[in-house]
Formats: sequence, structure tokens, C-alpha cells
Amino acid sequence: MSGWLAIIGLGPGSSAQITPEVTQLLSEATDIVGYESYVHRITSRNPAVRHLSGNRVELERAYQALNLATDGKNVALVTSGDPGIFAMAAAVFEAVDAGPKTWRSLDIRVLPGITALLAASARTGAPLGNDFCAINLSDNLKPWALIEKRLRLAIDGDFVIACYNPRSNARPNGFAKVLKLLQRETDRKRTLIFARAVSTKHEHIQVIPLEDCRPDMADMQTLIIIGNSMTRIIETTGQPWVYTPRSVDPEKSQ
Amino acid sequence: MSGWLAIIGLGPGSSAQITPEVTQLLSEATDIVGYESYVHRITSRNPAVRHLSGNRVELERAYQALNLATDGKNVALVTSGDPGIFAMAAAVFEAVDAGPKTWRSLDIRVLPGITALLAASARTGAPLGNDFCAINLSDNLKPWALIEKRLRLAIDGDFVIACYNPRSNARPNGFAKVLKLLQRETDRKRTLIFARAVSTKHEHIQVIPLEDCRPDMADMQTLIIIGNSMTRIIETTGQPWVYTPRSVDPEKSQ
Repeated sequence: MSGWLAIIGLGPGSSAQITPEVTQLLSEATDIVGYESYVHRITSRNPAVRHLSGNRVELERAYQALNLATDGKNVALVTSGDPGIFAMAAAVFEAVDAGPKTWRSLDIRVLPGITALLAASARTGAPLGNDFCAINLSDNLKPWALIEKRLRLAIDGDFVIACYNPRSNARPNGFAKVLKLLQRETDRKRTLIFARAVSTKHEHIQVIPLEDCRPDMADMQTLIIIGNSMTRIIETTGQPWVYTPRSVDPEKSQ
Repeated sequence: MSGWLAIIGLGPGSSAQITPEVTQLLSEATDIVGYESYVHRITSRNPAVRHLSGNRVELERAYQALNLATDGKNVALVTSGDPGIFAMAAAVFEAVDAGPKTWRSLDIRVLPGITALLAASARTGAPLGNDFCAINLSDNLKPWALIEKRLRLAIDGDFVIACYNPRSNARPNGFAKVLKLLQRETDRKRTLIFARAVSTKHEHIQVIPLEDCRPDMADMQTLIIIGNSMTRIIETTGQPWVYTPRSVDPEKSQ
């Protein structure tokens, strides 16, 4: 009897943002695989075997999950946010593509989750009200020059830009280079949102003009949204709202 | 006593993809406001007053919801997918920005939902495995020239591209122009995903090379994902998997 593999998204942190289908699936799994911080978030009473791993071993983790499913286990491979946005789904399909033919007939499912982009947007208003890009700032798997090229093109197109994985201990300097690029190629009043650990008790939101941004405002738990030229702030007695208008004046879009 | 306004995302269609916080909030609302097709999806037994409206009256709907909250009602403004992605959140904050000062002290919350982009990605594998853009193909509120400019820049940056609102009765020709632009500026084997009404009983997924795409494959319920130059297909006995590798070879990214 063959097992299954479900790659599931736990959302940004709060259990109130985990979809019912993910909760249901966690109760049916015989084995739970994932980065230890994410597996520790699971409160299900299901006595599934838990296979913890470190942060930077995505492909090994994918092989482990595929092997367990091949052995007949019902495997939940857990990720934070959404599995398809800079998380484990791509690693699993890379492994399937390179692996034995039998893996192509495995029962594999991907269950979406609330990705950091959506959580940060909701918490601050509607910064993604117009067309946007999402860029992973980690250069572990792609050249830094490509990240800068994509940032420049996104600025040229006046996209709102969401940046995942801006800064880590192993990559302390990348985000400083991004700020310098923005300072060269956009206006100093451009609005940035630093949304850290949204929906958890460590949540911290900052809405700051580009000229006041510092590299150390970001870490691996921060999602950054760079407003486009039209992004506006609504001052309130508390945290301001940020939104990007849906309309673009034809005169200003050339 | 003042009310509140919550702008909430119902996800793509399945109730198993509605977050618990959205379900909870729907049970507490005194008034539910929204496009009629979305309000009809709500199965809550809460006898809230339902205020239905047509599809193309976003700003009027936002004013209605803000006025009800000002009058002390607890208002759920419902959207499909996520409220911040080409949905109602931006319209509400546009209205707040232009409206009376008192609206700035209203209790407004935005609750995220599974947007079509995540649902379509999950159903087909991991097409968003590398950096991506999301572009609203409706030119109701922005010039068509800007849409084409953004598409060209996104192709130049080798982003994966998600297209919302590709085609409607009022805009029958835009998507045909997009296909022509793609045929001019990318390769004819480029992979496209047409994901219609994901997670509903009307779900229909097509994975097709660019050279075989036709304009009438899209309608207003279709989310289109245009793969980048690296996007790969894994053939299976059923629907193929689609993924975009996380790694980019430095030699190929110039």
C-alpha cells in the first residue's frame, strides 16, 4: 500500500490563519517532516513521528519526505507561510524530476497557506493595490547580479516590490546593497514596510521613508514591501495605513 | 458606541481554505457587504443583514461599508481570494483617504485569504519557485500601455508572471494582445498554466505551451501563470506537475 506526501503551508504564525484542510491533513499524517522551528509550531495531538531538520537542507528534506511516502507513510512536509513561495514545494519537485520514475506516480498534494506577503499587506492596509513583484533576496542559489537586475526592472515598471529573506547571519550585506540601489534609482521619500513575524507575539511593523531605512531593520523573519511611486500613507492616531491606489493616470505612466 | 469594518478574504472557493479567523469574524458581523457572488458563498448561520452589490462598483461598496461601520454596525466586507490582491482593500483605503477625518479613527481590520495565485500554484506543483510578478490585466483603471510595459520588463527579468483578470465580456481583446506580445518576446515552448475556479466544482486546469494557447482559454475566473525560461514540466500518468527551479546558473542569467 502506498503512502502520500502533502506539502503544507502553516501560514505566518497564528493558528487562526491555518486553513481547515491543513489542520485536517495534519491529523491524518503518520509522519511530519520539516525545519524544526516550523514542526514545533504544530499543536495537533496526532502522535505522528516527527522528523526535524536544520534550516538549509531543503533538498535532503525533500528526499527524506519522498522516501517516507514511497515506504507507505502518510507524510506532511510542513513549511511556514505558503509552500510554493520561496519554500519547500520547488525543492520537492526538483527532487521528483531528478529521482526515480516511481516518484512520478506518488500521491503528492500541495496545500496553500497565507504567505508573509499577504499577512504583511493585511496588517498595514493595501500596499499591494497595484501590480507587484516578489523577489527572494537570498543569493545562495542565484547570482546577486540577477537580484539587482530584477530590482532595477521592477523599479522601472513602477511595481510594488516584496522582498523575502532580506538578511541573515550568513548574508549580512545584501540588504544594505538593496537600500543603496533604491536610493540611487528611486525617490528618498519612497515608503518601505518592514513587517517582522506578523501574527506572532514577536510581530513588529515599521512604516518608514527610504531615507530613514537602515540595513539592520531587517532579519530573516522580516518581509519588506517597497511601495511604488504612488503608494500613500494615511496617518491615524495609531499605526498609519499604507495603500497603493488601483488607478494609474495615463500621463504619469510613461 | 462605534462599530468596526473587517475586509476579509474568503479564499478561492472551497470552505476548507477559509481561515478560522475569517469564519469567526463572519459569525460576529451584524452586516455583510459584498459582490453578490461572494456573499452567496457564505454558509454562516449568523442572521446578519446582507448588502449585495454588482461587480463593478468597488468604491460605492467601500463607502457603504464605511458608512455602516460609522453608524455602529459590525461590518464584514467580503472578497474572494485575498482582499489585498486586486480586490477591495485598496478601494476602502482610497475612500478613507478621501473621506471624513473621523474614518481615520474607525476600527478597520484586513484579514488575509488564499489568493488565486497561491491556489493555482499549489494545484499545479511549484510554478512560483523563483521570483515572480503579479499583474492585473484589466485596463479599467490604468492604461493598456502600462500593462504591456510591465509585461515586457517582467519578461526581460525572467520573472514568472501571474496574470489576474485576463479577460471579460467588456474586455474581450486584451488577453489576445498579451499572447501576441509573449509570442514576439519569448520562446514558443514557454509553459502557461490556465487555472480556472480552483478548488470549486468548476475547477479546470490546463498546462499548455505558448504556441498552442488561444485567447478564449481565459475568462474572468481564470488565473494565468506564465512560466519563466527555466520552468519545467514533469509528466505523470495524470495532470503534469509544473515547477520553476530555485537555482539560476550565473552563466544563463545575463
